[in-house]
Amino acid sequence: MDDKFMLMIPGPTPVPESVLLAQAQHLIGHRSGEFSQLMGTVADGLKWLHQTQNEVLMLTASGTGAMEAGIINVLSVGDRVLVGSNGKFGDRWVKVCQAFGLTVDVIETEWGKPLNPNEFQAALTADTDKTIKAVLVTHSETSTGVLNDLKAIADHTCAHGALMLVDAVTSLGACNVPVDEWGLDVVASGSQKGYMVPPGLGFVTLSDRAWQAYETANIPKFYFDLGPYRKSAAKNMTPFTPPVSLFFALQVALKMMQEEGLEQIFTRHAKLQTATRAAMRALNLPLFAADAAASPAVTAVMPQGVAAEQIRQIMRQEYNIALAGGQDHLKGQIFRLGHLGFVSDRDILTAIAALEATLAKLGANGFTPGAGLAAAQAALSA
Amino acid sequence: MDDKFMLMIPGPTPVPESVLLAQAQHLIGHRSGEFSQLMGTVADGLKWLHQTQNEVLMLTASGTGAMEAGIINVLSVGDRVLVGSNGKFGDRWVKVCQAFGLTVDVIETEWGKPLNPNEFQAALTADTDKTIKAVLVTHSETSTGVLNDLKAIADHTCAHGALMLVDAVTSLGACNVPVDEWGLDVVASGSQKGYMVPPGLGFVTLSDRAWQAYETANIPKFYFDLGPYRKSAAKNMTPFTPPVSLFFALQVALKMMQEEGLEQIFTRHAKLQTATRAAMRALNLPLFAADAAASPAVTAVMPQGVAAEQIRQIMRQEYNIALAGGQDHLKGQIFRLGHLGFVSDRDILTAIAALEATLAKLGANGFTPGAGLAAAQAALSA
Repeated sequence: MDDKFMLMIPGPTPVPESVLLAQAQHLIGHRSGEFSQLMGTVADGLKWLHQTQNEVLMLTASGTGAMEAGIINVLSVGDRVLVGSNGKFGDRWVKVCQAFGLTVDVIETEWGKPLNPNEFQAALTADTDKTIKAVLVTHSETSTGVLNDLKAIADHTCAHGALMLVDAVTSLGACNVPVDEWGLDVVASGSQKGYMVPPGLGFVTLSDRAWQAYETANIPKFYFDLGPYRKSAAKNMTPFTPPVSLFFALQVALKMMQEEGLEQIFTRHAKLQTATRAAMRALNLPLFAADAAASPAVTAVMPQGVAAEQIRQIMRQEYNIALAGGQDHLKGQIFRLGHLGFVSDRDILTAIAALEATLAKLGANGFTPGAGLAAAQAALSA
Repeated sequence: MDDKFMLMIPGPTPVPESVLLAQAQHLIGHRSGEFSQLMGTVADGLKWLHQTQNEVLMLTASGTGAMEAGIINVLSVGDRVLVGSNGKFGDRWVKVCQAFGLTVDVIETEWGKPLNPNEFQAALTADTDKTIKAVLVTHSETSTGVLNDLKAIADHTCAHGALMLVDAVTSLGACNVPVDEWGLDVVASGSQKGYMVPPGLGFVTLSDRAWQAYETANIPKFYFDLGPYRKSAAKNMTPFTPPVSLFFALQVALKMMQEEGLEQIFTRHAKLQTATRAAMRALNLPLFAADAAASPAVTAVMPQGVAAEQIRQIMRQEYNIALAGGQDHLKGQIFRLGHLGFVSDRDILTAIAALEATLAKLGANGFTPGAGLAAAQAALSA
């Protein structure tokens, strides 16, 4: 029964039927008045979602492409940057910075633990010559289910004067990311996460300070040169052919989000997160991240006595539910349950019910059937 | 009547209903066995379409992104390249090369005229020190409707030993581009053209010689570093999140193309091109490119006595047919009728019929109503 398939991974996330079907419309030319109108509506929605007055630029690229664009448009070869890394994506931004000839200081923390804002403060305070040009942080580290304390790190960065560059790929649309209020200079994200849209569109927004830095940034670029995107965006156009069908989808998804409301979206994600974590605890499944540092987008679980990959396999084969596995050295060690985007209470109850049945099938010890569901239910109705 | 809308532009091109609907499927994870299977099928189809044994890499990017990737992966800062330019896209590759610090020799030809292979031969023969590392050519120049003689230029390039880099964005899937037979080292294209798929996917294929050049190419890159794409492709995966819904669409479109057959596809495009040109001549509408240099993807027309933009406006408003306008200095001077991808005899007859009615509405002189249709009909049944 293929059509029973259910995605519970942190991206691509489930897409509402109306959004899926929007893609099936006949295409329109991207140099037409119709497209400009569509792009204008979408641009407004994106500003709302980002809580910003800045233009949010739309790229035909994944979230990684959007983040790379943000980095190479505000920095120059040799610039010193401070990169927080406590997971696969933090590691990735280190690699991107190195690939483009930046001088990279890494503030590293064990995977599963949050970055320590005090370490950023110390490094920034010590930099009295102001040689650090930018600080890069992954807000929600998808590989571990950790939410870093972006606000605190942004405050220290602001006090220093460096640019604050943020990977908000799995935090935007899941929890509060007030771009202007927190003084975030570059914020990158991707359509297949909180947006409830299929993958293929990347987003990046730059503050006025970031645009000032753009003027002198010298890393070679063309496709990802954001100047032409900004210029085109003023006319609700894109410099290169945009993924038109994904724009159709995005328009519908943003409208749904606006109807739900930002606060409601954040509350829903927080509730789904709490319920998921309560259920895991009740099932005696160790959570990989501590409560205080848990991401509202994804929960990572490190089961003991039963293999993570076996759980994923049974969930997939018997119950048609896809969970994500661990990445890099966490491969086989954890499974990750996504509760990001178009996810409801029912989805969490469904996933927990199937997880209990899976544990029973695997003969896992130390859990009472029904305990996970009861805990999730209690959390959802709290 | 919005749903009567008909796209006759050179991209995005019309998309078959089955391809449109394929996008509306529920998503699957891109790290799943299902996705690998899908990607494997698609990869086979792409090799068939490119007539190559090389891997065809799939990028979340427009055609420009794919072409940029091809350029920056095989060349190094300071490398000398020979770029043919006789239109907007030729101009663009000059800009890309300059943006990445290459030394660019341009072989320029007036817009609307084909590049002269002899000029390439002369430049390459004169380069006895072999300082020219690559030759870049736009096969079908979408901005003018000119098809450049790629085979001849590739032969001269091969004799010299430089790498042959090709923008095949509107030629691939419209006319013969036998990548291996012609010794094309880098070939870039985009999904919204001959592929009959919405925009959002870029393709680039590299020959063994190009991969050798990759080893020492030093232009900074990360998102467009094709090494990881090649490594992932061996496992039917992508290094970053792919546009999954466009993969669904591409699979259906490639199957349709394989069922039609390469020769039949090329013959169909040639017939549509001939019919379109015959009709324009019969309507006394001057063709912008000569027959010998005409693109099978798009026909550019430079009307006299009646404004190109007025024709486009009436076609759009009265008959719901979108034609493309001129670009850069040709803005307002020409209109372009796309006959690329999912276009049938009926579409050409429809467009010509509406064009005749438009000319009549505009009080254009020098044409006999019905003459265009008669000429198109004759050409189609030849």
